[in-house]
Amino acid sequence: MLRSTQTIHSEVPEVVVLRLPIYARVLNQLIEEGTDVISSQQLGDLLQMTPAQIRKDLSYFGRFGKQGRGYNIAFLLDELRQILGIDRGWRACLVGVGRLGRAIINYPGFSPEGFEIVAAFDRDHRRHGTLLGNISVESMECLPKTIEERNITIGIVAVPAVQAQMVVDALITHGIQGILNYAPVAPHVPPHIIMRNIDPVLSLQSMTFYMKENL
Amino acid sequence: MLRSTQTIHSEVPEVVVLRLPIYARVLNQLIEEGTDVISSQQLGDLLQMTPAQIRKDLSYFGRFGKQGRGYNIAFLLDELRQILGIDRGWRACLVGVGRLGRAIINYPGFSPEGFEIVAAFDRDHRRHGTLLGNISVESMECLPKTIEERNITIGIVAVPAVQAQMVVDALITHGIQGILNYAPVAPHVPPHIIMRNIDPVLSLQSMTFYMKENL
Repeated sequence: MLRSTQTIHSEVPEVVVLRLPIYARVLNQLIEEGTDVISSQQLGDLLQMTPAQIRKDLSYFGRFGKQGRGYNIAFLLDELRQILGIDRGWRACLVGVGRLGRAIINYPGFSPEGFEIVAAFDRDHRRHGTLLGNISVESMECLPKTIEERNITIGIVAVPAVQAQMVVDALITHGIQGILNYAPVAPHVPPHIIMRNIDPVLSLQSMTFYMKENL
Repeated sequence: MLRSTQTIHSEVPEVVVLRLPIYARVLNQLIEEGTDVISSQQLGDLLQMTPAQIRKDLSYFGRFGKQGRGYNIAFLLDELRQILGIDRGWRACLVGVGRLGRAIINYPGFSPEGFEIVAAFDRDHRRHGTLLGNISVESMECLPKTIEERNITIGIVAVPAVQAQMVVDALITHGIQGILNYAPVAPHVPPHIIMRNIDPVLSLQSMTFYMKENL
């Protein structure tokens, strides 16, 4: 049912990949509510999307539903979790433990979804040794060793804009494969590295495009 | 040069709108560096995009560059700022002043870009009257009056997941047009309301899709 992931990566538009976690989330909610089967029409109603769009998105990965019978939710969720790689745990480190960094380390949403922050770094020596939860803040010099020892593959960047590129470069040099960037810039990364920018200003600026007519 | 925004909104794909603030940001940096003119090729190098994609994106809004002469950066930035509606200021309120809310209110990136948080609400009465910067936390009951009096059009939601839909509904009822949602759910909004979700878990989950092959 699940097609080879080798072929998948080059074929699937990124916008589809961005929607898959949303499908997974809603399917998870449906399971918790005790629902077994759902049509693309019902799924579309829940997600405010057309059923055709949903069927097209899922068709990149094989055939999940039978015509007129809807999707088996548990099966579809299981496949989506495999496709997304969220059927396993991921270990992340945080760089920058200022106000934003501390909010990130205390964010309750990561751990239940399998993302564990297992190390934190800061260049300010006054923060070294500070305990945040059960994580002791380390110096940037410890980064290479800690990443390797703790099998960390994701780096979360919460440093000021001017430091972001340097931090991202260091993370990549020391084996990080994915970067979640909270700094308000878009650092450059080589093509084999995947980066997501969390930038509330960019989000606001693409909202006002739609709002300015209403004033 | 700038086409009527009435026609623009229905024609422009959302992915293009999402890229416009990134163009604006990079053009701003170029101006600060003293650059006057840039080709789509150079812009593409800076943004890791093809020149054809950049020309296509900008073509939705008119003709900005002369063949072979590149873009006048100041002019293009000015037009983009008008198109995005970021040539004016916007007033926002924050709902939820827990750890995340306090990080948001102290985020240094909003104000220089024209987004001002001018009110904060929380349902916990122990937080009412607390000063965050120069903002006094108000009860949810004050929301309608404060939104109207302070001309607030954007709502920033930083409440737990279970409260998010209720808060979003209240904001919309009282005239908010755009919502920046930090709660780890995707609340439903009517079509005339624009919402952006800041959800680091969704970002991580669409990253691991690309990372799982490398393990």
